Amino acid sequence: MTADDERLRIALWQCEPRPGAPGENLDRLDAAAADAARRGADLIVTPEMVVPGYDIGAVRARELADPPDGPIADRVRVIAARHRIAVLYGCAELDPDGSVYNAIRLVDAEGIGSATHHKTHLFGDLDRRMVASGSARPPVVEVAGWRFGLLTCYEVEFPELVRSLALRGADVVCVPTANMIEYDVVQDVLVRARAVESQVFVAYANYCGSENELIYGGRSEIVAPTGDVIAVADRAPDLVVAELDRATLVESRRRFPYLEDRLPDLYT
Amino acid sequence: MTADDERLRIALWQCEPRPGAPGENLDRLDAAAADAARRGADLIVTPEMVVPGYDIGAVRARELADPPDGPIADRVRVIAARHRIAVLYGCAELDPDGSVYNAIRLVDAEGIGSATHHKTHLFGDLDRRMVASGSARPPVVEVAGWRFGLLTCYEVEFPELVRSLALRGADVVCVPTANMIEYDVVQDVLVRARAVESQVFVAYANYCGSENELIYGGRSEIVAPTGDVIAVADRAPDLVVAELDRATLVESRRRFPYLEDRLPDLYT
Repeated sequence: MTADDERLRIALWQCEPRPGAPGENLDRLDAAAADAARRGADLIVTPEMVVPGYDIGAVRARELADPPDGPIADRVRVIAARHRIAVLYGCAELDPDGSVYNAIRLVDAEGIGSATHHKTHLFGDLDRRMVASGSARPPVVEVAGWRFGLLTCYEVEFPELVRSLALRGADVVCVPTANMIEYDVVQDVLVRARAVESQVFVAYANYCGSENELIYGGRSEIVAPTGDVIAVADRAPDLVVAELDRATLVESRRRFPYLEDRLPDLYT
Repeated sequence: MTADDERLRIALWQCEPRPGAPGENLDRLDAAAADAARRGADLIVTPEMVVPGYDIGAVRARELADPPDGPIADRVRVIAARHRIAVLYGCAELDPDGSVYNAIRLVDAEGIGSATHHKTHLFGDLDRRMVASGSARPPVVEVAGWRFGLLTCYEVEFPELVRSLALRGADVVCVPTANMIEYDVVQDVLVRARAVESQVFVAYANYCGSENELIYGGRSEIVAPTGDVIAVADRAPDLVVAELDRATLVESRRRFPYLEDRLPDLYT
């Protein structure tokens, strides 16, 4: 269950949302992390805002928001350490300045929190009515010998963000998401393009089922820098596990030297 | 055969290369332009360096290179004016400074040259041994009431270039190319992603057949900003014609407001 630097096993927890039930969601995460660990995964990635639910509105988001080192953070650290698996999970975060953010947090397999990202590119009224927009660049952090870039949902649809992560050394971009079924083009086209054009693995963990008026598309996937979809869920709840191989990344970057061939003076 | 500003008909001339035979290639272009015009097209797009051939090496590229207002330019102006169709074609261009470029040139339906672009992002040794790298940003030019962004082959694989064209007002990005069969991922994934993420139509005109050791993949395509492939060739010679509708562009940009939602401060 520890990565050997050459191989990394990622689990995507594709689940139905349970809005407004953080305790139940943390219990479900505990069970999914146990399952993922049994299957040899080094990391489990959840959908966006999996702890409070996504389509919960501003009032509930604030009520259910966790401070940076709040009780939800504590609980997930315990889950990670108990199952010896890194966890990237979505929640609402209450900042010391009083703002509520759509956050993702990465905890390593020792239960140590290693990064938080506040969603910067907000999706339509759904996001804008609920949370403040993050202002910091998405992070790149090393866990288990691999460098992870972290994005939330709509952000991966912007090629600039994945490019920035790759140029800062990311091997894998992980994306908790809440993507509706009418936007399948994201999984079919955009996520695969990000992997190829910026030469990274992309792990995209979506909801399935519905939440209020929203119907989610599932189809969580892990894509190689070759563009090959190496693991994909259907529309139903699933735990998708795939192994990433560093040799694939190295070989693919020889074949597609996009990062070297960029000419930034022409892009302004 | 004149665009009414709301609709534009584009023809992609997918042909086998005839390296080192510019006269024959201009005759073939004349015939293809006639055919496209009969089918109501406002514009015909050729593969990359269709006049001299693509895999011809530095010596032949220089021998067959046309000055900016040379005899090849003259001949294509006559073809365009005779058939009342705009032509975007690829050739080698001999610059007054003595450099040879991999060029594309747009001529309008009156036979007036309206733009030239020198390929900036050179592909591997094939390009680098043959031509100099262009240093100017790809152009956006208006023809028949539509704004065209122009790119050559490998350039469309860089999201930054299509983004730049879209931000400068392009409605359609046209791409003469010479894409080998082992890089089908370009048509399958990258070209479609460019259309969606930057909310433009993309018209990608490839060779089929072979040239020396190269085997081309065909599958020339026109993609809508929704990601839908509205016309596509197979592996054989073809003239693919599709109609672009401005209403599709307007509606798609409402649904995918990527150009408005960018946060450039986070991309540096």
